[in-house]
Amino acid sequence: MVDVAREAGVALRTVSRVVNQDSTVGPELVQRVRAAIADLGYRPDERARHLRLGVTGTLGAAVRQLSHVNPVLRAVERAARAADLMVLAASTEDDENLERHVVESMCRRRFDGIVLEPIGDDHGYLVPELAAGLSLVAVDRPVLGLDVDCVLSDNRSGIEKAYRHLVRHGHDRIAYIGDDERIYTARERAMAFRGCVAAHGGPLDTMLHTGQVESGRIREAVRAALSGAAPATAIVTGNAQLSVEVLRHLGADAVDVALIGFDDSELATLLRPDLTVVAQDTDAIGSTAIDMLRARIADPATEVRTVTVPVELITRGSGEIPPAT
Amino acid sequence: MVDVAREAGVALRTVSRVVNQDSTVGPELVQRVRAAIADLGYRPDERARHLRLGVTGTLGAAVRQLSHVNPVLRAVERAARAADLMVLAASTEDDENLERHVVESMCRRRFDGIVLEPIGDDHGYLVPELAAGLSLVAVDRPVLGLDVDCVLSDNRSGIEKAYRHLVRHGHDRIAYIGDDERIYTARERAMAFRGCVAAHGGPLDTMLHTGQVESGRIREAVRAALSGAAPATAIVTGNAQLSVEVLRHLGADAVDVALIGFDDSELATLLRPDLTVVAQDTDAIGSTAIDMLRARIADPATEVRTVTVPVELITRGSGEIPPAT
Repeated sequence: MVDVAREAGVALRTVSRVVNQDSTVGPELVQRVRAAIADLGYRPDERARHLRLGVTGTLGAAVRQLSHVNPVLRAVERAARAADLMVLAASTEDDENLERHVVESMCRRRFDGIVLEPIGDDHGYLVPELAAGLSLVAVDRPVLGLDVDCVLSDNRSGIEKAYRHLVRHGHDRIAYIGDDERIYTARERAMAFRGCVAAHGGPLDTMLHTGQVESGRIREAVRAALSGAAPATAIVTGNAQLSVEVLRHLGADAVDVALIGFDDSELATLLRPDLTVVAQDTDAIGSTAIDMLRARIADPATEVRTVTVPVELITRGSGEIPPAT
Repeated sequence: MVDVAREAGVALRTVSRVVNQDSTVGPELVQRVRAAIADLGYRPDERARHLRLGVTGTLGAAVRQLSHVNPVLRAVERAARAADLMVLAASTEDDENLERHVVESMCRRRFDGIVLEPIGDDHGYLVPELAAGLSLVAVDRPVLGLDVDCVLSDNRSGIEKAYRHLVRHGHDRIAYIGDDERIYTARERAMAFRGCVAAHGGPLDTMLHTGQVESGRIREAVRAALSGAAPATAIVTGNAQLSVEVLRHLGADAVDVALIGFDDSELATLLRPDLTVVAQDTDAIGSTAIDMLRARIADPATEVRTVTVPVELITRGSGEIPPAT
């Protein structure tokens, strides 16, 4: 900027005012400064401006995995863009250490706020960041033990809807193949399933299968659910990826075993029969998250809230298959 | 930091040396400074450190869409993480203006380098950034008109492999349903297809269908390809999303029409018949991009290169369906 001022023959302060679009600078001076900027190839460094203004116009998003279908992240991006905010996102790979590294990096860059899909039970590292003024909203899962804004799906009601639907279609041996219970949503969904089985009086040991989304584990779970003296006639899955894997291992059995998947996907209407799903309202989750984050950025004293977004059962065929006789 | 120095009763310089893990500070002083940092809740601002050191340990990735399956971005993240670099990514939505906004924002934040999936023909806005030292590597598509490192798939060879494979299985009326030719890869693939048809002597007008990935447009393309006096007996698609849409509109015809999709996906082995694909080596693309970017960051005078990564035809059933008689 010193070079620009010298080249334009103006005061350093004038260069600064032109760069920051101060309307009090006369047009002749503006033009001289702009010409000098172009001649010298001067590139403003946004970080210095951010340091001065205290805002960056940027939100961070720390999510499970960037390069995977993530309709909540899509809705977050859309809502942020509508508010003229840029989202810079990073993957946490559902690894506690990586989450901490990503979130702390975003804090040190002074992003205006962070949308976090939290993993793990210990978020103690957030305490000093929150005390220092971090604006944070958790999506999909809460930040356990800390008072943080949060947008969740109604996981419990989703599983109950699926279970009731299958019972209504004549099933009484319904298996659940879910995600790793280290993850909050997986835990909530498995817990809701346990509640359904307890209320309905079925056997739990051969019907509940949770663990990592890993093809071999899921093959085993499908095999275990469909074998034995009283095999399952219906399966509920814990997320869209699990639906894919369960279908893969069901193979030709897919037309005989009823299936309801948690989470809708473009895949769901490609299959024969099309997949009945518990659909999350991902648009509502994303836009609610951005609304809450903006409210918190605008007023750090805003009351902390947890918003639970309803889910919807969409019947398409696979969940309406009657029990094999 | 001034407050920390006062609280610890040390010089400001000592606080700075402790924060930056300078090993020449004695353990007693380190402990006093750390205690003062904890008491005062001091949070280091990474941006000031970045300004001083001139590096950020961060790469930007500006890609078509974050919240979609993107195995190249996944490989980019993995390779960057192995080199202790964090990737902060943003979507360009294949919108020229948004790409410019995202890339310029990353430049102003002085990310160490940027991985870009470029859209559009005019990247003039990059000229001053490159002149100012931006390290950039383009993936999937080149930055047309500028001398920029680039990692591409062998699009031409992929289409030729698919076409030859279908001809070998008895087809001579092969349709292509591709993406918008505004996009480099779509243009390359369509061009390669035109070359195949020219060499083979078939009709082009009813066989080549390119445009936006939009369900209605694709339904029309499928209908047009399969109707008329000489309907297509085989279809090649331009990307994985198109494969999904084409399958959706083929419906029951999917067992009679041969299909080869550009791009592999988890979906490909879920279908009946499983999908024959032209698979890109996304791992190689991602890790090559990071290698090239790191080389350029280390030495800005490194010669600019374009690396073309081979593709592979994977036969699974759908591409081996004989022509309906």
